[in-house]
Amino acid sequence: MDALTDAELTILGLLVEHPRHGYELEHVIEERGVRNWTALGFSSIYYVLDKLAKRGLIEAIGPRTSAKSRVPFAATEAGREQCAAATREALAEPSPVRARVLVAMANSAALPDDEVAAGLAERRAALRG
Amino acid sequence: MDALTDAELTILGLLVEHPRHGYELEHVIEERGVRNWTALGFSSIYYVLDKLAKRGLIEAIGPRTSAKSRVPFAATEAGREQCAAATREALAEPSPVRARVLVAMANSAALPDDEVAAGLAERRAALRG
Repeated sequence: MDALTDAELTILGLLVEHPRHGYELEHVIEERGVRNWTALGFSSIYYVLDKLAKRGLIEAIGPRTSAKSRVPFAATEAGREQCAAATREALAEPSPVRARVLVAMANSAALPDDEVAAGLAERRAALRG
Repeated sequence: MDALTDAELTILGLLVEHPRHGYELEHVIEERGVRNWTALGFSSIYYVLDKLAKRGLIEAIGPRTSAKSRVPFAATEAGREQCAAATREALAEPSPVRARVLVAMANSAALPDDEVAAGLAERRAALRG
C-alpha cells in the first residue's frame, strides 16, 4: 500500500480528532494555518476524502443524500492505526523539505537570464518587506 | 484555471527542456535528485502526465500503441508559456516551505506522549548520524 501523502496524513489526522464534514475541514485548515506546512487546495479536500474512503481509512457517517460538503466522515479503526503509524514514522525519520522556489530554480534554465534575475530581485524585495 | 502544483511544474519543466517518455522522466528525476525538493512518487508521474495532457500543456508525440512508459510527451506552446509564467512567479513570490515532520507534529496530539518523545529522539539520533 502506498504511503500516505502529506495532504492525506493531514486530513486523516483531523478526522482522528473527531468526525468532520468537508466544510468543517476547510474551516479548521484555514483557522490553524495548515497551509503553512501542507499543500492542500480547497478542491483537493474532497479528492483526498475520496481516496481515504476508498482505502477504508475513513467512512461517511451521514445520510447519502446530503450535499457533498455536508457529509461527515469519521476515521475507521484501520484509519486510526495508520494515522498513528505514519505520524510516528514522520516524527522519527528525517525527510526532504519542499519549497516551490526550488522547483522554479530547477526550471530557471528555460527562462531568459534577465527574467530570472528580475524574479529573484522581486523575491528579495518581498522578503525585506 | 488551477495553479500548477509543484509536481506538475516539475514535470512540465522537464518536458520544456525536451520531449521525454515516462521512463526517461523517472530516470532524470532520479539522477538529479529532484525528490529532494518535490514530492513525486513513481506512479504519480503518469498521473501528472495525464493531467498536463488534459489541460493541453503537453501532448503525446509517439504512436498510441506503445507501452505507457514509452510514449513520448512534448510541451505545447501553451505549456511553454505557462511553465515560464509559473516559474517566474515562483521565483518572485515567497511561499511556505513544506516538511512532513510538521504534519506529524500537528497530528502528534493523538499519539501517547511517550511515543512522540520516542519518535523525536529517533529523529535526533538519525540527524546526528
